[in-house]
Amino acid sequence: MKAYRLVPGAGIAGLRQEQVPERPLGAFDVRVALHAAALNARDLAIARGQYGGLTGDAITPLSDGVGTVVAVGPSVTRVAVGDHVIATFWPDWIDGEGTRESQVRSFGAQLDGTLAEQLVAPETALVHAPARLSDAGAASIACAGVTAWNALFVQGGLRPGASVLILGTGSVATWALQLAKAAGLHAIVTSSSNGKLAEAERLGARGVVNYAEHAEWQDEVLRLTGGEGVDLVLEVGGQDTLARSLAAVRFGGRVVVIGGVSGWGDVKLSPGALVGGKKTLGGLMVGSRRMTEDLVRFIDTTGLTPVVDSVFPYAEATNAYERLASGSAFGKVVVSLK
Amino acid sequence: MKAYRLVPGAGIAGLRQEQVPERPLGAFDVRVALHAAALNARDLAIARGQYGGLTGDAITPLSDGVGTVVAVGPSVTRVAVGDHVIATFWPDWIDGEGTRESQVRSFGAQLDGTLAEQLVAPETALVHAPARLSDAGAASIACAGVTAWNALFVQGGLRPGASVLILGTGSVATWALQLAKAAGLHAIVTSSSNGKLAEAERLGARGVVNYAEHAEWQDEVLRLTGGEGVDLVLEVGGQDTLARSLAAVRFGGRVVVIGGVSGWGDVKLSPGALVGGKKTLGGLMVGSRRMTEDLVRFIDTTGLTPVVDSVFPYAEATNAYERLASGSAFGKVVVSLK
Amino acid sequence: MKAYRLVPGAGIAGLRQEQVPERPLGAFDVRVALHAAALNARDLAIARGQYGGLTGDAITPLSDGVGTVVAVGPSVTRVAVGDHVIATFWPDWIDGEGTRESQVRSFGAQLDGTLAEQLVAPETALVHAPARLSDAGAASIACAGVTAWNALFVQGGLRPGASVLILGTGSVATWALQLAKAAGLHAIVTSSSNGKLAEAERLGARGVVNYAEHAEWQDEVLRLTGGEGVDLVLEVGGQDTLARSLAAVRFGGRVVVIGGVSGWGDVKLSPGALVGGKKTLGGLMVGSRRMTEDLVRFIDTTGLTPVVDSVFPYAEATNAYERLASGSAFGKVVVSLK
Amino acid sequence: MKAYRLVPGAGIAGLRQEQVPERPLGAFDVRVALHAAALNARDLAIARGQYGGLTGDAITPLSDGVGTVVAVGPSVTRVAVGDHVIATFWPDWIDGEGTRESQVRSFGAQLDGTLAEQLVAPETALVHAPARLSDAGAASIACAGVTAWNALFVQGGLRPGASVLILGTGSVATWALQLAKAAGLHAIVTSSSNGKLAEAERLGARGVVNYAEHAEWQDEVLRLTGGEGVDLVLEVGGQDTLARSLAAVRFGGRVVVIGGVSGWGDVKLSPGALVGGKKTLGGLMVGSRRMTEDLVRFIDTTGLTPVVDSVFPYAEATNAYERLASGSAFGKVVVSLK
Repeated sequence: MKAYRLVPGAGIAGLRQEQVPERPLGAFDVRVALHAAALNARDLAIARGQYGGLTGDAITPLSDGVGTVVAVGPSVTRVAVGDHVIATFWPDWIDGEGTRESQVRSFGAQLDGTLAEQLVAPETALVHAPARLSDAGAASIACAGVTAWNALFVQGGLRPGASVLILGTGSVATWALQLAKAAGLHAIVTSSSNGKLAEAERLGARGVVNYAEHAEWQDEVLRLTGGEGVDLVLEVGGQDTLARSLAAVRFGGRVVVIGGVSGWGDVKLSPGALVGGKKTLGGLMVGSRRMTEDLVRFIDTTGLTPVVDSVFPYAEATNAYERLASGSAFGKVVVSLK
Repeated sequence: MKAYRLVPGAGIAGLRQEQVPERPLGAFDVRVALHAAALNARDLAIARGQYGGLTGDAITPLSDGVGTVVAVGPSVTRVAVGDHVIATFWPDWIDGEGTRESQVRSFGAQLDGTLAEQLVAPETALVHAPARLSDAGAASIACAGVTAWNALFVQGGLRPGASVLILGTGSVATWALQLAKAAGLHAIVTSSSNGKLAEAERLGARGVVNYAEHAEWQDEVLRLTGGEGVDLVLEVGGQDTLARSLAAVRFGGRVVVIGGVSGWGDVKLSPGALVGGKKTLGGLMVGSRRMTEDLVRFIDTTGLTPVVDSVFPYAEATNAYERLASGSAFGKVVVSLK
Repeated sequence: MKAYRLVPGAGIAGLRQEQVPERPLGAFDVRVALHAAALNARDLAIARGQYGGLTGDAITPLSDGVGTVVAVGPSVTRVAVGDHVIATFWPDWIDGEGTRESQVRSFGAQLDGTLAEQLVAPETALVHAPARLSDAGAASIACAGVTAWNALFVQGGLRPGASVLILGTGSVATWALQLAKAAGLHAIVTSSSNGKLAEAERLGARGVVNYAEHAEWQDEVLRLTGGEGVDLVLEVGGQDTLARSLAAVRFGGRVVVIGGVSGWGDVKLSPGALVGGKKTLGGLMVGSRRMTEDLVRFIDTTGLTPVVDSVFPYAEATNAYERLASGSAFGKVVVSLK
Repeated sequence: MKAYRLVPGAGIAGLRQEQVPERPLGAFDVRVALHAAALNARDLAIARGQYGGLTGDAITPLSDGVGTVVAVGPSVTRVAVGDHVIATFWPDWIDGEGTRESQVRSFGAQLDGTLAEQLVAPETALVHAPARLSDAGAASIACAGVTAWNALFVQGGLRPGASVLILGTGSVATWALQLAKAAGLHAIVTSSSNGKLAEAERLGARGVVNYAEHAEWQDEVLRLTGGEGVDLVLEVGGQDTLARSLAAVRFGGRVVVIGGVSGWGDVKLSPGALVGGKKTLGGLMVGSRRMTEDLVRFIDTTGLTPVVDSVFPYAEATNAYERLASGSAFGKVVVSLK
């Protein structure tokens, strides 16, 4: 079958189209003919050699994909040939809080991923795709969508009507904004681009802050929340923004750090700020299969349509990487595999 | 000042318009000039003598009201003259799970209520009204709205995308439907009236069941949920519906019984059904001030507008009671107090 | 290998010692040489034909067992040959709330169980045994211990210092009492035997009620709790006790029904009692692997030693069943398999 | 009445014994004849001028006290003359998560405290004392005990059997150790004194680490937990220990920072560590009345006796401050007020 292969650290230019042998199916394995795959910041980090824990062997990249089941191992019961499925990010994290062991292997890193004609995955790593999404939309769920879901509703535990500050308009941020709108949250978005802020407002942001115009953007957030601060900050920046995020969150609120894909240095913070404001700082990486299923159900219920920035044909996967690397994308960058 | 007075059990006809002396303000008390008050099923039960724990003394009925602060005691800090406020149902239940002691006194029952020119309440029992609602809408929040909020999001703990079965189209049910829609839940509504079901669909119900046409309506609910059942049933019926509600809820789901204002006999149920299906059956009465504040914030965030059935002038409060008693109302029945 | 075989419904007398072929190992399977197995009320119900959902085929009974890993399939990573392990009750319920699908198959019912020389189980269904327990003690954990753990600390969510009413002195009840004592809960125990109540006090019960002497035993419980009632009732009786249990639980408290193995008829209860007292009634069946692991850790931390009533040699398994059936056992009834 | 008075920042030497007028009782106020008061690190910080938000006016110091109700305002219902009560730390934080407003005023800082013959407090700020404690023991609960309770069981949410690393043997740490032991937790304690570590083992520590002997003490903690790390760190150090605490906590675990009374500079940490290990860092200040009540109940249930380092007579309160300042105390430093 056809697959892209990449040695981690070889750069975008290191992507190679190859013919690789079909993997045999174990008793609980499923073969999926893929229709589309989506890129995440992590995939850039892998290409650039900024993602820890990988060997020097070539991998098939990308974690996110949607397709049709074409063959199943003899013990498979969760899916059947013909089912329309997406892969979860962590095949070993099914439900509950997860453990260190359940968050070691992911597709497109330790396991061959979705930038290929086929994916072979254990049945436990598959979820039925939403009923009404395009392939590009369905391919956008597993990493960025589930990360946003976990941050807002699982680790964040936000109730309807709560306020969330979303830093930037990357794909997790855009997912978070769409989820917030559809779940009755009060979302505030930051960007250095007024064009992107206008787009965020169109998607349902109730407040926007241009951080290029407001260096002390945390003060704008306080102003927009009557001086209280937000219940939760979805923090994707880290080094440069964490102290401001802690200032923008309300007494008793939480900052959730996602990502951590690369290159963060140390951050200075005052523990006294955590104590006096009873604030919490937490981190997460994507989420469980249960969260993926819950997000699919939410999409089916609300009709949410993920924002897709662009769809590239299989032969132009390198261009998809370049698009993501440009920082100009608003929404997911997708590769069609059909 | 003007106030209606009623001896519990005297019936709707027992409502009397009177002139009563202004209550003096204690150090922490607030005087509110009321604009509107809303009726709840409980108020009918009080009039009919079906509400336990009341003495034979006349009371000023109704728990729900909105108005403007006109005077404050010397120690008051939470509100100021001119503030637009609503009263909470339980003045002693501020936050947390509450205790038996915090759910003894409510306005319009043990305490004089809102069917009057003024309400005197401790400052701790007041919440700022939503920014954009009419008086009729704001008056609809404290009992029915908070009951639905508690059932869905606090005791029910529903996550976005969860499914809820709402029995009937009474005012708690209608609130629950509107909350469910605005928070991204999958709502199914039952009624014996196709007209009301059409209205429910207009408000966002994703499934409807006419129980007059489907005596085994729980089977319809299962059918509408792919055989799984719903995550939560908002149970207002009790005696006649509880066994069916338990059948309509999924493995691991919950039935929340609200109301309980009067006349329920015993219900038969099989504990084995709870065990085998890991189901939970719980009850509640309205909610805390924190829940009321959270609901107001949700209304401000989402623009939800409570359904108001009708607004009666002060002189026609008896007609408001009759309207509620007719069973024909869809949405809240309100009395204007201006 | 040697195994007992039983056709469900054949009665205790239907137990047969047989030689059965060794089951082959799948890629993720583990072969355990069993040291001991323990009986639960469910096993009696299966023998008596009072346990639903079983076919007429013979099974190897019992869910609870401890032993040593003697062989592993090629993909096994969780355990190694020589490890001392116990089997979980539900091999498909790993973590989280669980689903209907995860609570279908259990050892000794739908799957061959532990009254045998060996158990073949998927690696995901095994947990390392506590460090210091006897085989009889370790064999007592998986069903009764985990049921009590789930009821008190997961579904019950009890905080240290909370009060729990434990009905009777069956093996789940005895586990609950020991857990309560070691976790700083206030336990009250009922029995019709003053001898068993004295034993319960020795194990740490802070209150005891002889229900043969106090027909209105719920009043005794209220008296022992200063009129408040307990936070949680561990309800094993059902039909005859549920209404009293609901009366014995405090405002806002919970009754957890466990078991449900057989023959329960309907119970009458008043939904108004749930509403007015904000009480919750829930059911459960055993628990997840995560709960089993947590319980093992708790045993290791506290030095808790499960109460073992009696240990029968393999050849006398029928006598073990008879001992359990007698109702006289206090603590677990165990069969030695070495 | 007699009272000590102190201008914040005046130092221990600034403590003055005075005669002050009795405060009049408001409608909801209670007068308590105090028996004992206890010191906390915060009180030293106030004396030294290291505690923010205070004016330059003299105060009656100390937050913790126990005594007997001698008079009540006309609206008081929660306590009666003759009741044995303790004061809560935050009189405005009753239940629930609390708000910024509820954690502004505390006794001994913004409000006159307990180093006096009498305390006048709103009835909502009083809790009945445990049944069996000495005055010195009962005086030790409100600040240090509740802080430890909140950290372990409320914000920390620890289940029985969980592991906790307790930094040092200050009074919050000692409380945490005693709570951990009585609730079935696995406690590990650090100190630079082998004598204090021996004392910690006597109180139930299952592991101890001398950080003077092990500069990389986090590695010892990992070793003691089989390489996993602990579920929770009770972090009292801050600047010098936070990075090690984060290293000592398990995947998915939590560091709770308490105190924050003074002088913390910035701390460097890597957000990537939070993300990759899914760790959480939170802060808190003492707890609510509900937590205080829960702790009192736990003390009554388990018979826990707080460790008291020393009791000084009223006239020697300055010596009590010096004892605390010496860093040699193990357990609470108390002043007798009888």
